[in-house]
Amino acid sequence: MSRTRIHNLSISLDGFATGEPQSLEAPFGHAGQRLHEWMFRTRTWAQHMGTGDGAAPSGSVGLDDAFAERHGTGFGAEIMGANKFGPPGWQDDPAWEGWWGPNPPFHTPTFVLTHRPRPPLEKEGGTTFHFLDVSPAEALATAREAAAGADVRIGGGPTVVRDFLSAGLVDHMHLVQVPVVLGRGVRVWDGLEALEDAYEIEAVSSPSGVTHLTFTRRDGA
Amino acid sequence: MSRTRIHNLSISLDGFATGEPQSLEAPFGHAGQRLHEWMFRTRTWAQHMGTGDGAAPSGSVGLDDAFAERHGTGFGAEIMGANKFGPPGWQDDPAWEGWWGPNPPFHTPTFVLTHRPRPPLEKEGGTTFHFLDVSPAEALATAREAAAGADVRIGGGPTVVRDFLSAGLVDHMHLVQVPVVLGRGVRVWDGLEALEDAYEIEAVSSPSGVTHLTFTRRDGA
Repeated sequence: MSRTRIHNLSISLDGFATGEPQSLEAPFGHAGQRLHEWMFRTRTWAQHMGTGDGAAPSGSVGLDDAFAERHGTGFGAEIMGANKFGPPGWQDDPAWEGWWGPNPPFHTPTFVLTHRPRPPLEKEGGTTFHFLDVSPAEALATAREAAAGADVRIGGGPTVVRDFLSAGLVDHMHLVQVPVVLGRGVRVWDGLEALEDAYEIEAVSSPSGVTHLTFTRRDGA
Repeated sequence: MSRTRIHNLSISLDGFATGEPQSLEAPFGHAGQRLHEWMFRTRTWAQHMGTGDGAAPSGSVGLDDAFAERHGTGFGAEIMGANKFGPPGWQDDPAWEGWWGPNPPFHTPTFVLTHRPRPPLEKEGGTTFHFLDVSPAEALATAREAAAGADVRIGGGPTVVRDFLSAGLVDHMHLVQVPVVLGRGVRVWDGLEALEDAYEIEAVSSPSGVTHLTFTRRDGA
């Protein structure tokens, strides 16, 4: 059965998944890369970035890597928010095609939620961006059909994650709590009071200093 | 050397140390006892409550207990906020003497920060409440002198903890993150951006489901 999953969503101790202000030069604002350094040290990331090039890839293969790896397996589609696809104002730039160059790392149909849709954009490697101005439930129905039985990833950012959680559409969520206090940005928790009623929550701290939080929907989905 | 320490401050995933509204019947508001259930299961708590009465005390002696126990050792004074001493409006009730009955669990001079001080209140077991309308630094100087070389505990609630952290007066803090999303209440993190610059932070998840976070001041104090 096709599941809807969130993986590797990194947050600060105070719950921010991005800092501010977000821009072309600083996609995560004042957070910089600090929320994602744990991931850059994994073997999954080294493979993803193509380092090693035939030689054994570098990177840790421990707890952080075991979690990081699941971001890439079993998915047939991704849904992302407008703020993940580009910096503020990208909708005004017809030439903007995302952050990821000619061969984006999605390799599936990828649905971008925006109030200003544009025609589909086909890239190398199997990624086609579709731009939708629809509700979370409608976007999920469309993405699930495109995924043809595989899982659908909710790729972020935090606003989209909250919207899908609030709508009861997420089966499995993996957050990574990083020991920094950002103080400002976009919080993942707002509006999610009593989320524990719907999910089994497991916490496991890693020797790297981060804590992995997994949320499994209680109805067994 | 006398240190200033915070122990067993329990917070939700979204950073609230208390729910709302706080009242005589519900000191932690809609959070109820949920932030503190981990502690009630420890041997330290069973001893604290006097259960067992000569028989072997019940309660776990694992990770949660190892942390819980440190709340009670090495202190010569406590500082607490007005919201810990009583429910909203206690200042209007001359007969209010705290939540804790004739023998409060502090057993040291205990300094209550309030804009409406009253005369000292001596209770059984070594606890005397002193009511101060002073800054955090002035309160700490007074408490440290009363502690006569032992440590000073900042007993909470979250507003007082933030005030002492912001003023750079805390040497060691222990938070306990409980897997619930409260959604509202009083947050411990507000105004503490970049706290990680001043503290080494360690996270360790417990089999009970909570995650212990310790903050050790980097200057070695």
